Amino acid sequence: MPAPNDSLIPARVNPDLEKERRAASFSIFEFQCWWHGGAEKLKEKREIENYLFKDLRDGHLHDYLSHEDLYNLAVKDITEASQKLRKLQALRNPGGNDIWPKILYSNAVYALAPGGHPFSTHITMFIDVIFNQGTPEQIEKFGKPAANCNIIGTYAQTEIGHGTNVRGIETRAVYDRKTDEFVLNTPNLQAYKWWPGGLGHTANHAMVVAQLYIDDKHHGIQMFMVQLRDLDTHMPLPGVHIGEIGKKLGMAGVNQGFLGFTNVRIPRTNMLMRNAKVLPDGTFVASPASRLNYMTMVYTRCLIASFSSDALLQAATIATRYSAVRRQSPINANEPEPQIIDHVTQQHKLFPEIANGIVLFLAAQKVWEMYDLTLKEIAAGDYARMTDMHIISCALKVLTTTDASFGIERLRLSCGGHGYLSSTNLSTIYGNIVAAYTYEGENTVLLLQIGRYLVKSWLQLTQGKKMSQLVSYLAEMHGQRQMLQWNDTWEYLVKLLQYTAANKTRLACENLTKRVAAGQTQEEAANNTGIELTQAAELHGRQFVASVILQYVTGAKSNQRSKALNLVLENILELYLVQTVLRHMNDILRFTPINDTNLRSLQNRLEVALKKLRPDAVGICDGFDYHDRLLNSTLGSYDGNVYERLFEAAKQSPLNQKPVPDSFEKYLKPFMKSNL
Amino acid sequence: MPAPNDSLIPARVNPDLEKERRAASFSIFEFQCWWHGGAEKLKEKREIENYLFKDLRDGHLHDYLSHEDLYNLAVKDITEASQKLRKLQALRNPGGNDIWPKILYSNAVYALAPGGHPFSTHITMFIDVIFNQGTPEQIEKFGKPAANCNIIGTYAQTEIGHGTNVRGIETRAVYDRKTDEFVLNTPNLQAYKWWPGGLGHTANHAMVVAQLYIDDKHHGIQMFMVQLRDLDTHMPLPGVHIGEIGKKLGMAGVNQGFLGFTNVRIPRTNMLMRNAKVLPDGTFVASPASRLNYMTMVYTRCLIASFSSDALLQAATIATRYSAVRRQSPINANEPEPQIIDHVTQQHKLFPEIANGIVLFLAAQKVWEMYDLTLKEIAAGDYARMTDMHIISCALKVLTTTDASFGIERLRLSCGGHGYLSSTNLSTIYGNIVAAYTYEGENTVLLLQIGRYLVKSWLQLTQGKKMSQLVSYLAEMHGQRQMLQWNDTWEYLVKLLQYTAANKTRLACENLTKRVAAGQTQEEAANNTGIELTQAAELHGRQFVASVILQYVTGAKSNQRSKALNLVLENILELYLVQTVLRHMNDILRFTPINDTNLRSLQNRLEVALKKLRPDAVGICDGFDYHDRLLNSTLGSYDGNVYERLFEAAKQSPLNQKPVPDSFEKYLKPFMKSNL
Repeated sequence: MPAPNDSLIPARVNPDLEKERRAASFSIFEFQCWWHGGAEKLKEKREIENYLFKDLRDGHLHDYLSHEDLYNLAVKDITEASQKLRKLQALRNPGGNDIWPKILYSNAVYALAPGGHPFSTHITMFIDVIFNQGTPEQIEKFGKPAANCNIIGTYAQTEIGHGTNVRGIETRAVYDRKTDEFVLNTPNLQAYKWWPGGLGHTANHAMVVAQLYIDDKHHGIQMFMVQLRDLDTHMPLPGVHIGEIGKKLGMAGVNQGFLGFTNVRIPRTNMLMRNAKVLPDGTFVASPASRLNYMTMVYTRCLIASFSSDALLQAATIATRYSAVRRQSPINANEPEPQIIDHVTQQHKLFPEIANGIVLFLAAQKVWEMYDLTLKEIAAGDYARMTDMHIISCALKVLTTTDASFGIERLRLSCGGHGYLSSTNLSTIYGNIVAAYTYEGENTVLLLQIGRYLVKSWLQLTQGKKMSQLVSYLAEMHGQRQMLQWNDTWEYLVKLLQYTAANKTRLACENLTKRVAAGQTQEEAANNTGIELTQAAELHGRQFVASVILQYVTGAKSNQRSKALNLVLENILELYLVQTVLRHMNDILRFTPINDTNLRSLQNRLEVALKKLRPDAVGICDGFDYHDRLLNSTLGSYDGNVYERLFEAAKQSPLNQKPVPDSFEKYLKPFMKSNL
Repeated sequence: MPAPNDSLIPARVNPDLEKERRAASFSIFEFQCWWHGGAEKLKEKREIENYLFKDLRDGHLHDYLSHEDLYNLAVKDITEASQKLRKLQALRNPGGNDIWPKILYSNAVYALAPGGHPFSTHITMFIDVIFNQGTPEQIEKFGKPAANCNIIGTYAQTEIGHGTNVRGIETRAVYDRKTDEFVLNTPNLQAYKWWPGGLGHTANHAMVVAQLYIDDKHHGIQMFMVQLRDLDTHMPLPGVHIGEIGKKLGMAGVNQGFLGFTNVRIPRTNMLMRNAKVLPDGTFVASPASRLNYMTMVYTRCLIASFSSDALLQAATIATRYSAVRRQSPINANEPEPQIIDHVTQQHKLFPEIANGIVLFLAAQKVWEMYDLTLKEIAAGDYARMTDMHIISCALKVLTTTDASFGIERLRLSCGGHGYLSSTNLSTIYGNIVAAYTYEGENTVLLLQIGRYLVKSWLQLTQGKKMSQLVSYLAEMHGQRQMLQWNDTWEYLVKLLQYTAANKTRLACENLTKRVAAGQTQEEAANNTGIELTQAAELHGRQFVASVILQYVTGAKSNQRSKALNLVLENILELYLVQTVLRHMNDILRFTPINDTNLRSLQNRLEVALKKLRPDAVGICDGFDYHDRLLNSTLGSYDGNVYERLFEAAKQSPLNQKPVPDSFEKYLKPFMKSNL
């Protein structure tokens, strides 16, 4: 029986996991190098992690704290982490930004601050906006102290009554010519800022998005730098009503806040004026083009796509390792209970998520390449690729957050009862990721944007216009009356998805046109065609991801990988394509007659793909090279000592520090004696 | 600007909600009476709720507490609630059990103990097992004090390394003839009991499921009453290693625990001996039949089906009311922002969940009727219906927990960012319900059981055997070469589901047979056919639910409802059938060629159904008559004052009680001044 203070965790690695690792058909180290961009980068990553993750507090302490204590701990965690990161940046690459601040908005931050932290909005949006939209003077005055963390800010756009529709926000900034100031007011409860990270009790500044008025004339939405708290006492300044919005499903330490203004005055020069300007006499100078803000949104969505698919792979690693250790339910009576990973239904829960995570992560990398290219082209005055970039970053944000959210939860459930324990970290990963389903553009709103763009493109096609690169498949499919004869190649499955996406677009287009012809306004018709528009949009995303991964696995770069690794990737590709086609069969069959033989062959390919991945599953997950501290999971650690770790984690619960809880004498004993 | 201590919540009802209620096409009161089994029962329910829910603590206090404080509060909540319930039972219906203990395991308990509580396992399983499996002496000695809460117990079956496969458990009870005692031991870490509710720090007794050994001979699994803690001091008894298993995704106050034994001795008479017996000389008397335990599992699964579908409807009520109040994203430019419930994509998120929740709830009621009938038949010595009961209760448990879990989460996401706030209660409802996905038979394990039963039935059919009632559709479909010509009736859609379920079973059967013929053992073949078996099993459940609801809405009892109410139910039926058929189209198209015209007509019917439900959605949710305290939601309250309630809830956060948090002087200020 375990004594309270001795660690139960043996030094050995679970023999089932060892066996799995030995049995992998490929070099796990080659996979790790490939996944992390080369042996040098892998080495660097490991050195950084070893430095950052040593001597950290218990990874689940925050689970047991009160909301208030958890926040205070999060501030401790993140200030310490920031110091560490800055120091390491100076040590390893002075003047760079690859460690500080980049690691602060990577998944690795959860290893440093497992309960979340209130600095993200400061580090990303607040600082970015100043540097991108501020004048050189503003960058000097606000940007530099912000980058140096002498002030902590947040980005205050969303209001309690106004989310995605930014034009609807109501906070007002009115120019007062006499004092050369803006006066900020919150006209009603619905206009309160609500959600900005760190706003509650951390930030002393905010970039406030408000409606600008000069002499009662409205000049649209502008951004204003507002100091919220005294820099020394941290007390809220007069007229600033501020607090946190309360407990949430996840992001425990993020300290999201609310903010209202009563006649708060700021200097005219606190409006960000790189683009639009207000002169001292009250003249409003409109901006010639403010399209560049657009690329910040694209950037954020790419970031979300990367960390969401990465989180899905973290969950898959936890569930796969556990499934290799857990033994349950005999397959053959009188034989010992098998590893649950040998149950085909369990494989069907795990491997599609592994494949999907890998494919989405690689697709996000492809979009990052496009992003860099687009920035270069913009710098050269060429804006042509921006719409493609916008649409595909929206699509990838939707696919990754949807698939990661529901996938992580399916993986948690695949761990049976134990997945319900916080010490597995699965519910925390879920809580943090699912937030992205609704932030930075709610997913349905984004799908509708994509859908309307597709329909517009389709109409342009019928007018003979040329398509941009990412919708060129529409042109190819436009003239095609029917899908080619079935064949079993990967290329065929990709074409099938493209054909279906194009025909979904055509259908949405026809229905929309019909509705307009029947007298509905364009907008009403679009609303009534909403379901089909979102479906077409999703398929647009799917065919993109499928094309990217087909090219990635079978293209020229495969020469840089060993045959064994390529075989693994081909299995991943096969599983991904087959499951994606099966998943959308409902839509596919709408446009392409597929006979029972073909359907059986797909089902068979699915089962064969699961079987092929079985011996490599643990090795693939090792290939992501997640540090134990990052996974922070009793079920997912490298050594697979799952039961000992579950027990050790339980021992940490404060309730287990006393044999009899306080409520016994107070409530339970009198109750039991009362005879009711 | 709201002052800290005045309530912001106006007395008025939100005008948009008032408008919705006026516009409903039916009498909301009639719906409420129908849903609750008549005007008298509705009145009674409301009286009970008003009595129980007055003067309760804030419904979200527990969100802000530490894990330990939350547990102590849960004990306070549930002991107070139990006193209240007993008192009310004595007042309204002395000697009955409709209030105490029944309300303790209904959804209403969440209104009384919003953080969950540690008494459920005591009230349901512990007491039930004593009364069902104990001798009259044992009922006297243990059952009565348990029912009177003089002792608090739990049911300790699952072990950390052994879940669903009960035969695998390792805790041992060895009979010692010399002392007439059993000696209990936990042979290793994996044999620790793990998960029983209330075991951590609440229960002083446990019903322990262990392997019985007499003279080194194994006599299978038996149940043993074991005292765990001193009744007066609550200290764990010698040899009893006990504690809680730590924080979980939900069920915060349930205090699940672990339990290990080192030579713990209990009298021989503590083994439950209504069936199997151990005599003083060590003779083991096997039980002639212990089939009745089976009906306890059936009972528990019916209970899960009812409360899961009810929880889905709670979430639907919250999301629907919010969608009627929230205004966002203009449909027509230059018009005001519409209620978001007017967006078709939003309707597509809400109404299918409402329809599904209603239909599953009514199907569960039907299964309860069967359950009562089965009990009566068993009492008369007729066991014929038991297999049907077992299979259908498993199927309904799987469908309701799956659909409720993912449905609640989709509904939460339909509330956009605000759904992420704990004060909406959506994440708490989710956390409590999703647990049932893996407990009381993990869903995949249950589906495989059903699938194997279906295949067995199919084989019997081919041998000309008669089918029991709930699989008689298999016989009907067995000889049918192809599906009838498409028509637009509800009956056709139900038949389509049955035809597909039957053919899925046939296919699974064929593949299984093929694998056995190729040399696999029966068990290996079943494992390799796992995916298809689970799909057949799901469809078996779907066709059952569809048949029940078709009969319910169109059958003779419709005479007891007004025409207006029947029209609403017909819309629900239409939406349910269309969405279920669309959802399984992938499988349906495998066996039934459906042309594009029919598919278009289904899509059109879906859109028409959404449109028809639009004016009634809020009224239908009112029809469930959820008390505000039960919903416990800032977004879902009857008055629809959502922004004011969000704000009021935020004000309760302990962090908002001080302007500057403790971590400022300690961590944040030194950090900001440090220049890193």
